Amino acid sequence: MPLITANTKGVFVIAVTPFRDDGAIDHASVDSMVDFYFDKGADGLTILGIMGEAPKLTQSEAIEVTRRTLARAGGRPVVVGVSAPGLAAIGELTKAVMDLGAAGVMVAPPSSLRTDDQIAGYYRTVVETIGTEVPLVLQDYPLTTGVQIAPKTLGAIFEAHPSIVMLKHEDWPGLQKISDLRDAEARGRRRVSILCGNGGLFLVEELRRGADGAMTGFAYPEMMVGVCRLSAEGAHDAAQDLFDAYLPLMRYEQQPGAGLAVRKYVLARRGAIASVAQRRPAVPLNAAAIAEVEFLIARQQRKLEALG
Amino acid sequence: MPLITANTKGVFVIAVTPFRDDGAIDHASVDSMVDFYFDKGADGLTILGIMGEAPKLTQSEAIEVTRRTLARAGGRPVVVGVSAPGLAAIGELTKAVMDLGAAGVMVAPPSSLRTDDQIAGYYRTVVETIGTEVPLVLQDYPLTTGVQIAPKTLGAIFEAHPSIVMLKHEDWPGLQKISDLRDAEARGRRRVSILCGNGGLFLVEELRRGADGAMTGFAYPEMMVGVCRLSAEGAHDAAQDLFDAYLPLMRYEQQPGAGLAVRKYVLARRGAIASVAQRRPAVPLNAAAIAEVEFLIARQQRKLEALG
Amino acid sequence: MPLITANTKGVFVIAVTPFRDDGAIDHASVDSMVDFYFDKGADGLTILGIMGEAPKLTQSEAIEVTRRTLARAGGRPVVVGVSAPGLAAIGELTKAVMDLGAAGVMVAPPSSLRTDDQIAGYYRTVVETIGTEVPLVLQDYPLTTGVQIAPKTLGAIFEAHPSIVMLKHEDWPGLQKISDLRDAEARGRRRVSILCGNGGLFLVEELRRGADGAMTGFAYPEMMVGVCRLSAEGAHDAAQDLFDAYLPLMRYEQQPGAGLAVRKYVLARRGAIASVAQRRPAVPLNAAAIAEVEFLIARQQRKLEALG
Amino acid sequence: MPLITANTKGVFVIAVTPFRDDGAIDHASVDSMVDFYFDKGADGLTILGIMGEAPKLTQSEAIEVTRRTLARAGGRPVVVGVSAPGLAAIGELTKAVMDLGAAGVMVAPPSSLRTDDQIAGYYRTVVETIGTEVPLVLQDYPLTTGVQIAPKTLGAIFEAHPSIVMLKHEDWPGLQKISDLRDAEARGRRRVSILCGNGGLFLVEELRRGADGAMTGFAYPEMMVGVCRLSAEGAHDAAQDLFDAYLPLMRYEQQPGAGLAVRKYVLARRGAIASVAQRRPAVPLNAAAIAEVEFLIARQQRKLEALG
Repeated sequence: MPLITANTKGVFVIAVTPFRDDGAIDHASVDSMVDFYFDKGADGLTILGIMGEAPKLTQSEAIEVTRRTLARAGGRPVVVGVSAPGLAAIGELTKAVMDLGAAGVMVAPPSSLRTDDQIAGYYRTVVETIGTEVPLVLQDYPLTTGVQIAPKTLGAIFEAHPSIVMLKHEDWPGLQKISDLRDAEARGRRRVSILCGNGGLFLVEELRRGADGAMTGFAYPEMMVGVCRLSAEGAHDAAQDLFDAYLPLMRYEQQPGAGLAVRKYVLARRGAIASVAQRRPAVPLNAAAIAEVEFLIARQQRKLEALG
Repeated sequence: MPLITANTKGVFVIAVTPFRDDGAIDHASVDSMVDFYFDKGADGLTILGIMGEAPKLTQSEAIEVTRRTLARAGGRPVVVGVSAPGLAAIGELTKAVMDLGAAGVMVAPPSSLRTDDQIAGYYRTVVETIGTEVPLVLQDYPLTTGVQIAPKTLGAIFEAHPSIVMLKHEDWPGLQKISDLRDAEARGRRRVSILCGNGGLFLVEELRRGADGAMTGFAYPEMMVGVCRLSAEGAHDAAQDLFDAYLPLMRYEQQPGAGLAVRKYVLARRGAIASVAQRRPAVPLNAAAIAEVEFLIARQQRKLEALG
Repeated sequence: MPLITANTKGVFVIAVTPFRDDGAIDHASVDSMVDFYFDKGADGLTILGIMGEAPKLTQSEAIEVTRRTLARAGGRPVVVGVSAPGLAAIGELTKAVMDLGAAGVMVAPPSSLRTDDQIAGYYRTVVETIGTEVPLVLQDYPLTTGVQIAPKTLGAIFEAHPSIVMLKHEDWPGLQKISDLRDAEARGRRRVSILCGNGGLFLVEELRRGADGAMTGFAYPEMMVGVCRLSAEGAHDAAQDLFDAYLPLMRYEQQPGAGLAVRKYVLARRGAIASVAQRRPAVPLNAAAIAEVEFLIARQQRKLEALG
Repeated sequence: MPLITANTKGVFVIAVTPFRDDGAIDHASVDSMVDFYFDKGADGLTILGIMGEAPKLTQSEAIEVTRRTLARAGGRPVVVGVSAPGLAAIGELTKAVMDLGAAGVMVAPPSSLRTDDQIAGYYRTVVETIGTEVPLVLQDYPLTTGVQIAPKTLGAIFEAHPSIVMLKHEDWPGLQKISDLRDAEARGRRRVSILCGNGGLFLVEELRRGADGAMTGFAYPEMMVGVCRLSAEGAHDAAQDLFDAYLPLMRYEQQPGAGLAVRKYVLARRGAIASVAQRRPAVPLNAAAIAEVEFLIARQQRKLEALG
């Protein structure tokens, strides 16, 4: 099975975890969702992240979702989020999913970390726990974790651990961080792949700053695929035109907590999954919010038609 | 001088504080900025908020900025942010600015507050300190303060203190909070004015949920003025069209920390203030960021022309 | 097997989890530790809490530690900490340990909770998940969780969920909270058992305020047992004399992070466990700290002899 | 007037700010309190710290308290806390109090700081703002500020700014930090004075680790004075005996929030100040707490008599 590397590029969609209305995992929808994401042009998937409701699964469920996703992915790369309160659980889950054929694992820092040394020390113990042969994605997401990682601290971690091949970048603001990381590479630090999150809200600028693609879960992955392609071609105005067409809905989906309900609503509406159900705790989309989403989708459709 | 009330509507622009390159307050730019905001259609101003770099001023400077702004505002309402670590400073500054003719004062909760009772108790002591005759704006901004205030807690505070006439709403997500607050009024709770922040990023939806307008500092206040007007007329698609034209830049300006540099850059570019200078600590806009902003402004201009 | 109830009293020792030097669980030391705690007079045990390094165990290890502890406890009550990032894991572990014969489970609030309603809502979903027949201990530990729960919020949660039979009290300061909770019971709210944590540092006062005993892990459980007995007899000066003899070491052990190394050092020194080993991340006791602990133990011994 | 230096040793008492029952500053009690502290053997004072209710004063009140304290101190050193949300206020207050004859100023990091570079950058701007000729105390108090500063970050800050002559040490746990800082000096880093806080709860160990004394506000400063003297003489058991006699009350006074009421109660009881009044927000000592304090004071008196 393919592994991610420091040269991985493209769009890795942050997958939701489909549930049935009774809260059980909807295995059939795992299949249809995987098909949907790849049909829309995704290069890979990332499952069991924060927006994948990973903490709401038992470990055996997490492994089952991984197994099913990998089976359907047909050899295309799938990264698995394995963040957990302790190293033993991280190690156990990593071994299980890598044995199943995952392309790598992703770990966010626990929110108790503060100093640069604490952060570097944490990733050292993670690498020691999972082994240096497992490709690791460092998730830098201060808005949720509360952990701020300076570019030079990231650089020191990358230098110390070659198995950390990718940064899931979702600092906010984060554009200068991409420039700083790429500048450090230009001065000799080894390369890492940088895929960006934050719902795609800064994707055009991120790509121009040197990012390798997107790792986020906006319910229209074709936007990310298209923007990455146009940007790679240097068609920056066309990339921005496409981005702008989706931006009103993207912005609406990027609401902490509430956004997952929007995402699942749109994915269900598009046929990717059968139900909008989330596991508790969850905030369902009410009629007012659905009306807002539908208003935006209708307008988005018209704009895309105008773009041709 | 006019006071804000529970029925105040419209656009109150969150004003920046203009500095000279040497860090001194630029009094001439206070004048030009006030003119600029009202020329663009603002109904009022809010000065000395977080984006007004208020904590970086001495108290005598804060009073001087207030005096100058009020003199130039020519009788139009100006709200003054008076948040401070202690009640004595809040009381002292409130008395000073109300004596000068402010329309009301705004207070955000200190970040140490946690339980509902602590929050309610805080606003009780604020009202006791400044007096019940001073119109008070409660700033609900969890992203920055870390304090989450449930709608029912807001409602209890509003019921207890009639002098709290306005909510500066910038919870995120916050649309349902507006609906909840208006629902409570429909069931009998007294009305408060709700003006929305968050850089304007949800203004169209906020107005449809029942907000009375905007209180935020996007460097194109005419967007907010236009959206409020069109929304009031029921021209929701036109409102959204106007909003969408500005959205790419709005999104770019709404980056925590970095956003103020963008805002001052645009305001200086538009002639509202003389210098982009911020007081320390500050992150200046570098060449890459300026290029991104200019790219967005040029596109915005074309979109607005297309709208006619 | 016995279940805890709202009338449970006495000393429940927060047990460490014994590890071998290679990081594996030391099952023989589980046995010797259980014997040690009960020999010193404990009424029950609480395993897999924060000081039991629970997040560092895999779920299968957690279940194995529970099984071994219960087997050795010989019918005496053992509470099991089941806090986890998600409800599914809480539910799964609760079912497993209750089936094994646990006396109840303990859940601390996740650190993301802020408003009173969020906290109450969390415990409602926990009770729904584990079932109303499982005795639940609410762990109130703001220093570690960051979640502050007002006495009236605790009261509302207790009223709503009769299966929450016990409060592990370790707010700091927390004496008035005990008084407030007991006052509410005097006014008609149903009783809950209150066992106190914080390393025992306020045990004398806590008992006089109405606590039912201690649930904490100081390495000399006989102090807690003795203080509870003397306090129950009304021998307050004798209780305080005993407490004071241990206080210098108790204070030293109550250092966040570093304290567990002290506790394991003393337990190993007393023969309760074979090794001081902790799982990573861990801060071992260095020579300077060991000298400080030994100095305090020697003095403590002399004071106890003087007490007779 | 004397200035603090990197070689300052001894006991600097963290002074309370005396208020009258109506909330006004009690100037007469400032005098009696200053006399009291020096009569008990203090080497200096630190005013307007967190436990001095500094944020509750207006700036003019802060300056007036400083003036009065300095006048009464009769040439003995007085450090002034000048922490504020912004640099302009810090600069203004520093100039005022240094002109009045303060021995130095103390600044705690704002709670928004996270990375090592942010912390170092903050102290660089503080030093630039107040000038390199003003002796500066860095207050390291993570429990209250939420900012964790690694020993090597402290060392880098000390090296960069010779005017930072003192560390107010109140990390918790913090013993190893003292050892680390002194080890760095042994390897060549310039010396700084280390005075310890945390209510004195670890004073004996702190001195043996290399601290230069205490800077905290326990209401029996003679304990700190005596422990420092005995420790300097190498009489470690006698130092610990004295410490132990006061420890039960010291522990009781060291309750966040509630502790200041205890401190003011004892100081008023001892005649140092006229009233226990605090400015709002404040939690007064109720009857149950007063009984607990009196019980501890009576026992403390007997223990001290037994010590001779």
